[in-house]
Amino acid sequence: MTDRLEQQFAFLREVEKLKSVTRATPIHDASRPENSAEHSWTLALYALVLADQAAPGVDALRAVKMLLIHDIVEIDVGDVPIHSAGGTAHSSADIQAAELTAATRIFSLLPKDMADEFQALWEEFEAAETPTAIYAKSLDRAQPVLLNHQSGGGSWIDYDVTWDQLETRVGSKIARGLPGVWDWVKTRIRPWFADRGL
Amino acid sequence: MTDRLEQQFAFLREVEKLKSVTRATPIHDASRPENSAEHSWTLALYALVLADQAAPGVDALRAVKMLLIHDIVEIDVGDVPIHSAGGTAHSSADIQAAELTAATRIFSLLPKDMADEFQALWEEFEAAETPTAIYAKSLDRAQPVLLNHQSGGGSWIDYDVTWDQLETRVGSKIARGLPGVWDWVKTRIRPWFADRGL
Ligand SMILES: [Ca+2]
Repeated sequence: MTDRLEQQFAFLREVEKLKSVTRATPIHDASRPENSAEHSWTLALYALVLADQAAPGVDALRAVKMLLIHDIVEIDVGDVPIHSAGGTAHSSADIQAAELTAATRIFSLLPKDMADEFQALWEEFEAAETPTAIYAKSLDRAQPVLLNHQSGGGSWIDYDVTWDQLETRVGSKIARGLPGVWDWVKTRIRPWFADRGL
Repeated sequence: MTDRLEQQFAFLREVEKLKSVTRATPIHDASRPENSAEHSWTLALYALVLADQAAPGVDALRAVKMLLIHDIVEIDVGDVPIHSAGGTAHSSADIQAAELTAATRIFSLLPKDMADEFQALWEEFEAAETPTAIYAKSLDRAQPVLLNHQSGGGSWIDYDVTWDQLETRVGSKIARGLPGVWDWVKTRIRPWFADRGL
């Protein structure tokens, strides 16, 4: 098993670098930006805790695996904030191509069977077509909204986000997999925007 | 489902605070201390990636769940470094009692059925008797060793750790669940201590 171990630890050593990738959302007390490693931890917990809110056919533990690895490509590409470039940068073809190259580089550090499994999980997440991937994507959109709210506004302030922009860029994607969750979140955060005339 | 959602999000909001709990180990480039949230992410990945190194009877996905929540008690208690107080603080009765109180407070934010499940998972991890808990504990001891090594020494320098102390406090616990992993790790890190006459 030594060759396998060598490859497994090469991967585990490389992904430590995700702790240096910062995001647009601040942590709970607004003391610093969140990083993509701790963000991924939060999302894995979201997938466990909200499993009973998921649509039929969702495999919550598969979503946990997906969310643990979904941002590893950012080691090479960085995080692209959802509200940057007027909300368009996140889905640009250039960024998608760079992320695919990064996924292949990093997952290939693993033994072939695991590399294939992780790459397939990551591609399933990105395609957002299976019930499990739709669930995971909805969680990935919901957590930054709640964390922005918890920390006092976060990236909504930095990017001058209006309520309509939030509904279009984020709310519609949360609602796709978790309509009840978006209803709940909406009633909590709508006042933040209304109070500011946004 | 609204009452459940209220409780689920009360928990998910509370655990965001784990991002403010710092550990004795620095991150990969030694630029800052690791925090317990990103540490938990790394361990969940360890549990996935090293599953084929585990003993018979280990449920790797159950270990992932365990490791995602294993440090949540530190929101109230803080992290107790393994090498602090001559290696004794970590298992003191006072700290164990405080951690149990914290687990009950934080998991009780969840709906009763989930609170019970998470509390049982956490207690199983702490007891370190089932194959899955022994596996999870071994990973929890292995990752800081490799991260200390990756970052140039980390808490080994801060606490003047010798090779014998590392073998007793940490190596024996990695070897309990993952003897092949400890053999592999040992050959990589032994020179760091030998070079310094430790
Ligand atoms: Ca992302």
